[in-house]
Amino acid sequence: MTMAQRDTYTPETLLAVAVEVFIERGYDGTSMEHLSRAAGISKSSIYHHVRGKEELLQRAVGRALDGLFGILEEPGAQAGRAVERLEHVTRRTAEVLMGELPYVTLLLRVRGNTETERWAMERRREFDHRVTDLLKAAAAEGDLRDDVDLRLATRLLFGMINSIVEWYRPAHADSGLHRDEVADAVVRLAFDGLRR
Amino acid sequence: MTMAQRDTYTPETLLAVAVEVFIERGYDGTSMEHLSRAAGISKSSIYHHVRGKEELLQRAVGRALDGLFGILEEPGAQAGRAVERLEHVTRRTAEVLMGELPYVTLLLRVRGNTETERWAMERRREFDHRVTDLLKAAAAEGDLRDDVDLRLATRLLFGMINSIVEWYRPAHADSGLHRDEVADAVVRLAFDGLRR
Repeated sequence: MTMAQRDTYTPETLLAVAVEVFIERGYDGTSMEHLSRAAGISKSSIYHHVRGKEELLQRAVGRALDGLFGILEEPGAQAGRAVERLEHVTRRTAEVLMGELPYVTLLLRVRGNTETERWAMERRREFDHRVTDLLKAAAAEGDLRDDVDLRLATRLLFGMINSIVEWYRPAHADSGLHRDEVADAVVRLAFDGLRR
Repeated sequence: MTMAQRDTYTPETLLAVAVEVFIERGYDGTSMEHLSRAAGISKSSIYHHVRGKEELLQRAVGRALDGLFGILEEPGAQAGRAVERLEHVTRRTAEVLMGELPYVTLLLRVRGNTETERWAMERRREFDHRVTDLLKAAAAEGDLRDDVDLRLATRLLFGMINSIVEWYRPAHADSGLHRDEVADAVVRLAFDGLRR
């Protein structure tokens, strides 16, 4: 269709609505009908923007993955001792998670029933492996404790970071928990622990 | 019904089946029909054991909660410096999670649509508060770092521990990750961090 649409959606704002619905109902449980109702526009208007719900999923998790992989290209992740690069990646991963909260939340919930979901899971694993490699490099430089298996440490590190999606809400920023405070806490606890 | 049933289920084994179905389909998405099919017995046989699916949910999350609250009554959680009691509770929480994996997984996924779910969430919050109190006591004794908000630290600590349900499987115990190794890693990282 090339006629003017009555909806005022851009691909960007439609994506934001779709992500909320995917998180609420699960991707599998979401139909184009659900998306149409949530967006308040007809299904054909949605098809004006995208080929279908899988394209919306792909754009949404792609946005989260671009944010995460972008971290690995930052100067702080490229130069310096591995433990410092790891610290940078840890802080920035927490920040990207909070900055792109719904997109990363969706990425973390993807379960692998479609090609796009399997691609997203594969890319997520790839990111995890890149971080495990950083842990290995930091251990080789003698900066990490040597009594914890590094893959297990990576899992627990991501467990801590990813759990932020369970409770962090930007609206809460005024009630005490600022994004910087959360990112600082993650870095402090991950690298130096609770104990004084 | 008081006649002999053809099924060989006990309330215990029926519970184990129900928990798997609740985790797979979500509690809301599970009908008595789904439970009947998964257990391979008729609905009336299930009603011989329990009043309905909410009773199964209540028993399942009750089992997880009994395990968690039981930790707080153990000698290691009762005597000694607060930081040592906190360390005991951290280790034992990880152990109970792995030992009662499906029950704790279900507890962590409960969302609050029914009275039983709201009760479970309330009890879970109560457990978190008891742990936050331990952190406060350890901080007051000067044993915890003072640059991280204690409620935030509690959230991140549970984030790390609870994330174990995402990847730990008892069957994997032979392939390298033993329960003790995971619990040790959690305690080391939580208290002393990754850095050497």
